[in-house]
Amino acid sequence: MSQNTILAVGSMAFDTVQTPAGKAEQVLGGSVNYFSVAASFFAPIRVVGVVGTDFPQAHLKWLSEKRIDVSGVQVAEGKTFHWVGSYDGNLNEAKTHATDLNVFEHFNPKLHDSHKNSPYVFLANIDPVLQQQVLDQVETPRLVALDSMNFWIQGKLGELKKTLARVDILSVNEGEARQLSGEKSLIRAAEAIRKMGPSVVIIKRGEYGAALFTSRGAFLAPAFLVEQVVDPTGAGDSFAGAFMGYLAANGAHRDMAQQDPQKWEVLLRRAVLNGCVMASFTVEDFSLHRLMRLASSELTVRQNALMQMIAV
Amino acid sequence: MSQNTILAVGSMAFDTVQTPAGKAEQVLGGSVNYFSVAASFFAPIRVVGVVGTDFPQAHLKWLSEKRIDVSGVQVAEGKTFHWVGSYDGNLNEAKTHATDLNVFEHFNPKLHDSHKNSPYVFLANIDPVLQQQVLDQVETPRLVALDSMNFWIQGKLGELKKTLARVDILSVNEGEARQLSGEKSLIRAAEAIRKMGPSVVIIKRGEYGAALFTSRGAFLAPAFLVEQVVDPTGAGDSFAGAFMGYLAANGAHRDMAQQDPQKWEVLLRRAVLNGCVMASFTVEDFSLHRLMRLASSELTVRQNALMQMIAV
Repeated sequence: MSQNTILAVGSMAFDTVQTPAGKAEQVLGGSVNYFSVAASFFAPIRVVGVVGTDFPQAHLKWLSEKRIDVSGVQVAEGKTFHWVGSYDGNLNEAKTHATDLNVFEHFNPKLHDSHKNSPYVFLANIDPVLQQQVLDQVETPRLVALDSMNFWIQGKLGELKKTLARVDILSVNEGEARQLSGEKSLIRAAEAIRKMGPSVVIIKRGEYGAALFTSRGAFLAPAFLVEQVVDPTGAGDSFAGAFMGYLAANGAHRDMAQQDPQKWEVLLRRAVLNGCVMASFTVEDFSLHRLMRLASSELTVRQNALMQMIAV
Repeated sequence: MSQNTILAVGSMAFDTVQTPAGKAEQVLGGSVNYFSVAASFFAPIRVVGVVGTDFPQAHLKWLSEKRIDVSGVQVAEGKTFHWVGSYDGNLNEAKTHATDLNVFEHFNPKLHDSHKNSPYVFLANIDPVLQQQVLDQVETPRLVALDSMNFWIQGKLGELKKTLARVDILSVNEGEARQLSGEKSLIRAAEAIRKMGPSVVIIKRGEYGAALFTSRGAFLAPAFLVEQVVDPTGAGDSFAGAFMGYLAANGAHRDMAQQDPQKWEVLLRRAVLNGCVMASFTVEDFSLHRLMRLASSELTVRQNALMQMIAV
């Protein structure tokens, strides 16, 4: 195992999505797919998830060609999770029309013994009880990041808080940060969430970028301006993938916060910018299509362009 | 006259505003008031506007104590312009309940001879026909900036375009940029507007900051994160005031775009950040209350804090 391997646990899905730019039916989706493909540009990935017997082998084969270990993907009798949603004028907010959990309803993330020593762990947006089960199985990770959403904040706040107490980094969107903290101001919301456990809080702001909160205060990163947003689905998860991938590739470790706070802060800020760049590619097409044809050289060009957009 | 004097033309008003934080009745408002007070931290200002006989002398006296020449303010028989509006959860958008133009309805901006040589000119959001009348009266300004809004884009597009052809800088919000250009993407919208005349376009993004577009591309500045937004009224105008004030204080000139493009771009970017800082103070209280008690030292502290929030 590489010292910068990331274990990622979450949903693998088919999405049917309608946006002002068009419609995509039964395309590859799911939080852990977006995360893994984005993170694979930076570090090796191990995926834990579940799919139905209808999930094409070609997808798994394609993932495994990208430094993504899919041996932890369970294939269960039944259909793959299927999400149906749409975006209207406001591309920051999806409307869910149907959530057919299918085999995902009984997802029980069980790690291979060989996966338990993963140094980096990303818990995508799933039931916080399952997130805890994963944490119970991993040994002593260097860094654990968590994504969650309004559904769990509303429905399983107690369990979510237990999970939060065990992670280093939380990423949520603005509305979720306010809901979780009960604070309207982003600064106060982040401060309240940091007291729940994660020393690093990322608040995703859709087309406006992301805000990072640490003991050193706030870092505000704009989204890279793209010519056309085709489908925002997966932006947050691919943001997290590049963010975590960058940290893993650079050997970030939670102890850095004390041992080398300056370096820790710089790595986190650069990781956020990498997240913004990756998300800006994701939204340029449906599903993972843009990421599938993304070259590392394009990432570099856009990273430089984003740096230019924020340089004073 | 100082080499960096700014002539500002626009509305002086009373506002009655309701926000989630409370209500303010018949308080000092109007675009040119916000602009002038903000700009006065950087450069001397000449105001051209009209008020009714109900406008308190104390207000004018207070303005004139702040390097603001109010000799161009006409006092007309009747009542001062009165705007009644409110903000609900979305603090980026005001709802107008009443617009009593009163004496402002027959505003006819006539410059004193001694004001015609003003090197910097700011045309706040008023009828584009009046904006042109002002431009007809000024001699050879170094830099002209313009603010407008959906009302004129919809109702007087032809006249607005004539005005646009004569100015260096336009500031509008996201919706207005899209409406004016017919483009959804901010990049394309700005490009289209730059072709209408202004070589510099600023797109205001409310609580998310502002985007600057020049021949060198985009600069994305976040809004400074404040603990509580009390009232967003005047944020855009005070942004423009600090922006223009900073440019005037630093001797910016439209010819710089060719003669020293690097310096021009740096000045514009720093001016945008100064605008963001000023706006962040404005929104912390109703009316001009926060700006009235703002010390230069507070500006410096927050400028440094904003730089810290965007440093990589």
